Parts: sequence; C-alpha cells; structure tokens
Amino acid sequence: MNAIADKQFVDYIIEADWLAPVVPQRQLLEQHAIAVQDGVIVAIQPKNEIHRHFHAAQQLELDGHILIPGLINLHTHLGMSMMRGLADDVALMQWLQQHIWPVEQSFVAERFVRDGALLGCAELLQSGVTCFNDMYFFPQATAEAAIQSGMRAYIGLVVMDFPTKYAHDADDYLAKGLAIRDEWRDSDLIRATLAPHAPYTVGDKTFEQIVTYAEQLDLPIHLHLHETQQEVEESLTKFGVRPIERMRQLGVLDPRLIAVHSVAMNEQDLDLMQSHRVNVCHCPSSNLKLASGIAPISAMLKRDLNVGLGTDSSASNNRLDIWTEMRTAALLAKAQQQDAAALPAWQALEMATIHAARALNADSSIGSLEVGKRADICAVNLQHINSMPCYDPISQLVYACGREQVTHVLVDGELQYQKLSFQPGVYAGIEPTEIKEIVQLWQAKLKPFKAM
Amino acid sequence: MNAIADKQFVDYIIEADWLAPVVPQRQLLEQHAIAVQDGVIVAIQPKNEIHRHFHAAQQLELDGHILIPGLINLHTHLGMSMMRGLADDVALMQWLQQHIWPVEQSFVAERFVRDGALLGCAELLQSGVTCFNDMYFFPQATAEAAIQSGMRAYIGLVVMDFPTKYAHDADDYLAKGLAIRDEWRDSDLIRATLAPHAPYTVGDKTFEQIVTYAEQLDLPIHLHLHETQQEVEESLTKFGVRPIERMRQLGVLDPRLIAVHSVAMNEQDLDLMQSHRVNVCHCPSSNLKLASGIAPISAMLKRDLNVGLGTDSSASNNRLDIWTEMRTAALLAKAQQQDAAALPAWQALEMATIHAARALNADSSIGSLEVGKRADICAVNLQHINSMPCYDPISQLVYACGREQVTHVLVDGELQYQKLSFQPGVYAGIEPTEIKEIVQLWQAKLKPFKAM
Repeated sequence: MNAIADKQFVDYIIEADWLAPVVPQRQLLEQHAIAVQDGVIVAIQPKNEIHRHFHAAQQLELDGHILIPGLINLHTHLGMSMMRGLADDVALMQWLQQHIWPVEQSFVAERFVRDGALLGCAELLQSGVTCFNDMYFFPQATAEAAIQSGMRAYIGLVVMDFPTKYAHDADDYLAKGLAIRDEWRDSDLIRATLAPHAPYTVGDKTFEQIVTYAEQLDLPIHLHLHETQQEVEESLTKFGVRPIERMRQLGVLDPRLIAVHSVAMNEQDLDLMQSHRVNVCHCPSSNLKLASGIAPISAMLKRDLNVGLGTDSSASNNRLDIWTEMRTAALLAKAQQQDAAALPAWQALEMATIHAARALNADSSIGSLEVGKRADICAVNLQHINSMPCYDPISQLVYACGREQVTHVLVDGELQYQKLSFQPGVYAGIEPTEIKEIVQLWQAKLKPFKAM
Repeated sequence: MNAIADKQFVDYIIEADWLAPVVPQRQLLEQHAIAVQDGVIVAIQPKNEIHRHFHAAQQLELDGHILIPGLINLHTHLGMSMMRGLADDVALMQWLQQHIWPVEQSFVAERFVRDGALLGCAELLQSGVTCFNDMYFFPQATAEAAIQSGMRAYIGLVVMDFPTKYAHDADDYLAKGLAIRDEWRDSDLIRATLAPHAPYTVGDKTFEQIVTYAEQLDLPIHLHLHETQQEVEESLTKFGVRPIERMRQLGVLDPRLIAVHSVAMNEQDLDLMQSHRVNVCHCPSSNLKLASGIAPISAMLKRDLNVGLGTDSSASNNRLDIWTEMRTAALLAKAQQQDAAALPAWQALEMATIHAARALNADSSIGSLEVGKRADICAVNLQHINSMPCYDPISQLVYACGREQVTHVLVDGELQYQKLSFQPGVYAGIEPTEIKEIVQLWQAKLKPFKAM
C-alpha cells in the first residue's frame, strides 16, 4: 500500500502560525497551511492535516509568520518613480509647473516609464503588494515592467484632452490604449482599465466615449475625482456644477467607477456616490502631503461605500507602502470621528485587500485567501522586536508592523519575492533571545486582559 | 620621519556619503567623516583629509549612508511595552478601565517595568534613537534597562496624588524619585526629570513642591498637558480655569516644562505657552489613535515654540518609531495649514533631534553632530529600493525611509547597535543591480529639475 498514491501533488504547501483569509470576515486561523497548484489555492487546512491529502514540490514552513492575501495598491503611477523626492515641501502649483511637468516634457517616453515602473514594482513586491492599479503615459511600458516582476496589474489606458509626448488628442489616447488592451488580452496578469485622467483634463465628448467603451468591453473606469477644493470650484465656474454632478450627467457614476481621492466632498456628493454605488480609492498620505486635506472616509464607510487604499505616485507620497496607508487611514478616521474604535485594524486590512479587489471587479478571483481563488499570498514575520508581544496579529499588522517584515510574496502561485536570511541587528547590550523569552513570559500573563 | 606620530589616536572614524549635522541649520556635508574619542566628537572633516590628522582604532566606511544625530524620543513610557496591541480599537475609557489599569494593578512591579523597558530599548535603538525621555512607575527599572542597552535616558520621577503599587502618596512618590536621582547622579547616561503625571492626577500642593525641587535641582518637568478636550472641561468644572492657566498660577509654566500632547489648545493657551517659553512634545500617532485629535503644531511653530517629537507608549501608538512621527508630523501640518510647504523635512528632523535636546536642556551636549558634543550618531543606508533615487537625502529620510534602514547606532561614542549583512530580498524577475543602474541613469538626468 502506497500512501503517497492517494495524495494530490501540488506546487506549494505554505505553513504558518496564523492565517487571515479576510473572507470570511474577521476569521483568524491558527496553525494552518495553504496548498497551491497551477496558480490556484486548492486547500486551506490545519497544518497537521494537510500532509495527509497533499504532497508538495516545495514546502515553506514559516514559524512566527502570518499569511494574508496579497495587498492591492488601488491607485498609483509607477512610471513616475524616478521623480521620488525631486521636489518635496513645495506648494502644489509650483510642484507641478516647475518640477513635475518640465520633467515629463523632457523625459517621459517608453524607457523612462518602463524603468520607473520596474523600480516601483520592486518596491511594491517587497512590501507584499501583489496587484496594482496604475494610470500613466505609455501604459505598455508599465505592463512590461509588471510582467518582468511577475506582478498582477490593472493598466490604466490614460486619456486626456490635450497633447503630450504620448498622444496628440483624445482619439489618439483611446486608440493607443485599446491597442494595448488587445495586445495583453490573453495575459493572466495584465488587465486594462479606462483611465480618463480627471474632470478638468477630459471633455464631455471624451467621457461619453469612455462610458460606451466601458460598457462594451466591461472595463473599470479609473478617475481622479474631487482631489482638491480648487477642482470643485473651477468646475462650478466652468460647468455650473460640481465635478461629481457633471460625471453623473455624463453617465460616469457607476459601480464600474473607481473615484480616486474624493477629498473635497459634501453631503450631496456622498449621496451621489452612494446611490450610484461608486468605489472610492483613499490615498491618505498623498492627500496630506499635497495639502489637499483628509477625505471623509468615516462618512463613506457609514454609507457602506466600497473603499480601497492607494499610495499615489512616489512623487507625491513618497513611500509606495500600503502598510503606511492602512495605518494612516485607521488613525485619521479615529481622529476624524473622535472615536478610538473607528476604522479598526480588520477593516483597514479589508480595504487593502478584498475591498480593492471589489473595486476592480476582481473579488471573485483575488483579495482573499479562499479555495478556488488565485494564489496571491503575502507572508509576514511577526517574530520581530517591533511586533512583540502579539495578542492580536491583525492589530500588529496594521499598527505595529512595517513592510520590512514581509518575507515571501506569491503572485498567481509563483514565488516572486523572498527575503533570505532575515537577520535581526546586533546589540552591544541586549541579547535578542532574552527579549523573546521575557516577552513570552509576560504575554502569557497579560493575555486574559486582551480586548476581543 | 613617522607620519603616524603626528596623528591623534581616536576610537572611531566613521565615513559616509552624506552628513547632516542639523546644527548649523540645513547644512548637508558630502563625503565627510566623523572622528570620535572618549565619547566625544573630536572632528568632522572631508573623508580625504581626516586620515591626515587621525588614526582610528575602528573605522566604519559607510557607502551610500547618511550620518545624522541620534534621534531623541521626547515622550514615552517604556515600561508599558508588554501591553502593545493588548487593546486596540477600543474607546479611551474602555481601554483604560478594562485593559490598561487592570493590567497595571495586577503586574506593575520592578520586573515588569524592567522587561518592558528592555524590549522598548531594543526597538528604539534599532530605529536610531539614542536618547529617550520616559515617565512610568518604578523608574529605577527603566534606568537599569537603559544602562544595559547603552542608551541615554531621561528618567521621569513620576508623581501622582493617588496610591499605586509603586508609591502610596505624593510624598512617597517624590521621596522614591529623588532617591533614584541621587543613585544615578554620577552616571554619564542617566538624567532625571520631575514627572507630575497630569493636571487631573496631581494636586496644587504637589505641583508647588515639584516647582521648588525643579528650581533647586535644576531639573526639567515632564507633564501630560491638554491631551484631550475632556481634560480641559473637567478642569473648568473643578478649578474654574483651563489646566494651562492653573499651571501658570502654580508656577509650572517655564522653559523647564515639557508639555506633552497639547492637543486641546485655544489661542489663549498658545499665548501662555509662548510667553512662558514652554517646550512642547508632539505625539501625532498617539493623539490620532486615541482619537484625541491633532495638535495645532503649525500655530506653535509660527510662535517659535520649541517642539520635539514623542511616540508615547507602545500601548497607544504602537510603534516606538520616531521616523513615523517625523513623517506624520510633517504630513499633518501640511493638511492643517493647507500648504504643502508647511513643516518641511528639515524641520521634522530638527524636531526629532536638536529641538528635543533643547526641551531637555541638553542642547549643549546632544541633538546635533558638532565638534565637542557627545557622539550620539545614527547611520542610515539610503541605497535601498525604498529610497531611490536620491535627490535630497533629508527628504528621503523623512518621507521615504523607514527605521529598517538604520544600520549603526552610537551612543556616547559606543557602538550600541549595528545591522550586519544588510541583505535585500531576492526577486524572481527583478535584478537589484539593474534597478540601481537605471536609477543612477535617470537621477543624473532629472537632478537639474530638483527643488532647492
């Protein structure tokens, strides 16, 4: 009798101390493992059971780690990565007119975008991001960087109503974008979105075309919307209505829409978003850094809007770090609502995973660790000085951990990043083993006092 | 002729690509080195000159690194470190009454505080913090942990007007505190502060005693002040004045005072702080997380108040990470002032170094890299995927870097932490060397567009 004959062969078995599938909500599995085959999660079982059913080509035993769904960066412009830190601490118009635009005029081309996107992918992957939603010129180059890195990418087919080095008019942008979509239509990793830049750079006729394409091709629409009060005021002057009302009139408000930023919002704007079931991408660091303000996320969540998280580009953030965005979103919401219980850690993790997947209309395949979904998986080492003791691993992820604690990243079932020989530093006076021992001692004593 | 005979022997020469002394303001030295002897900075010279004058027992050649003054955490409670993550996302009173206070009732004693403080020191040191300003029960135990870790510490001699496991009344707190001060008075690293907990836990008579001791012994006063609106309202009910006005009447407002939090402030409160030249400790993460609000830092800086940064305890933050506080302070100030130029990176770095030193009345010996000052030095690796390209190292420190990029930490001339074999992760599709090369290429082209 050969026991192995009864077992299914799989590519990976990944074992960890904790597993947060995100769906079902707020579930935390202990001492579980994931089996991955052909890019798909085929089983999630207790460690001590999984080997009875599966035989793995590769096995990862990750003591002290938690497995979470690969994080999703719902708004970025990876092609801008070479501009990181070029012009910080300058006012918005000076930033654009004296730094960002002149650089774009001088350098933006296939190679600039490909190189920037590759740097961006390297930063995202090592922070546990497996999927990003991008918008920039020469989207083909960003798709190529994603493919080289092994990342899942939603490539925005950017459209504006003025000429750039990439395209000379709206029809040219659209034609180039749709050609790119066609070229990648058989890719497992690359998907397209229609990406009208913003209400102030795109005219009515172009928006109407985009709505038609979105319906015909079943694509999400990726749009900057109500980023600043100035944008709202200029729209009132030029169109007599606020940008979101103009979008409603043009048929853009829809569950296909990912409205990015949404900082300058009043109650009527929120009503419109709610009644049209618009998705929001919250970019708290970028909104603070460019002095745009703080989006009314608490009000959006109360209305059950679907809200994901984005970093924006490394020219305006300057960390492509969804961990910082999770933490900042949770912290700002607490101050905004004057309630320390607002936007709890679990909800921040959902925003960075399943909510972002839903915004991309991809929640049937990514955004959670469930059998049958694509294997986009992030492993995080919680046995770190910075996240000891550990009473609640999800709290640690959002409030204590940093991206440097990510150790393994799988995209579509392939290991695309790992941190080998994760070594702590050496202290002259402190013995890390002693720290571990004393933490274990106190953690056992204090655990009964933990919040549920 | 023996060239070495003309040279001064020193303990360390540390060479780096950049050096930010912080004093003089906004100076950035390139390709410089520091010579350290007997705990003191004896020279700061160009790399290619320093070896003509000094011969070092140990030499650190830190390519791609920047040297900055050791960071100062101006407000923490290291003894609480074992409570990290025990009760997040719960309202303030529930947090205190159901979790923090019961744990303190059950466990707070010498050993609990020593172990927590040691964990805290380990976290602080690896993030480049060389000095912390603490307030907690059993301060003796915190001092012991600092000594073991080799850290500089300002130990708060905590005082309250109600009994705890540490002391039974105000006189007992004071007597215990002053005995601790006496015990450590010859230490190079340990200093004392008088630490009345808060206006709502300390009575008038006790404050008067503390003011007398502060003058006689020339000690700073470390006090939570105006953390919440509730604190202000309760004071109005009980004393008929706001806490800060009561502190003025009691003689507490003074350049000796470090007022922590200062969130619930009106114009008159700010006037009082300004006219009495009070120091402020800003703890942005803690204030957001406990839903206290956002301190009016921009208004304080406009009044030329001296403002440092603190993490607060890992029970309320939960990162003992001054890097996050620098970034959060800068970002919040921009949104608060609706000006992207507000609280620039340089100012954030000053808050975490020389301003904090000034608050502790220690700016003649620490807080900057200057000849004659104590050698509290932090080395940061900027050659990291997360901080490429690098047009402005100070911008990178505040907006892009994380504490994981700290590689060497000297306190009082001793190497107390180093990260050996700092290895980047391994990507399946990305070659880190290629990333470095393409970044160098673009950085050279874009540099002329950099903001000054």
